[in-house]
Amino acid sequence: MKVRILVSLKESVLDPQGQTVRNALHTLGYHQVKDVRQGKVFELELEGLNRQDAEKIIPEISDRVLANPIIEKFSWEIMEA
Amino acid sequence: MKVRILVSLKESVLDPQGQTVRNALHTLGYHQVKDVRQGKVFELELEGLNRQDAEKIIPEISDRVLANPIIEKFSWEIMEA
Repeated sequence: MKVRILVSLKESVLDPQGQTVRNALHTLGYHQVKDVRQGKVFELELEGLNRQDAEKIIPEISDRVLANPIIEKFSWEIMEA
Repeated sequence: MKVRILVSLKESVLDPQGQTVRNALHTLGYHQVKDVRQGKVFELELEGLNRQDAEKIIPEISDRVLANPIIEKFSWEIMEA
């Protein structure tokens, strides 16, 4: 089973990396880019789990390991069963 | 317009960050996780572009700035028009 988990900073948290990218894009002339937020993506290959178990384990893994719940939020989707 | 761009290492490129995460998950008992690949996600807010312009500019930005095309690939989707 292939799962994609997106981890990004909460809206209230400043994102200096994203701002740096936005500034770089402006320097290159891409003024249409109003805002950039940068985050992480994890693509997991899971084995021996049914969908129900996966739906339990994925948020658990995300919360414990992949994201820092103080400043980050996550979302996930099953790409391939 | 909100756009999400995913940048990840090409299949042929080793991903030590992903391997470290996988090892951490195994240590915590999540042996169902066979593989982890880590990448970046960029969420862009674009202004004053129609869909056609956006479809031209997004791969351009990704190729020039967000991804390193030697070792990375990207995909993107328009989240909100």
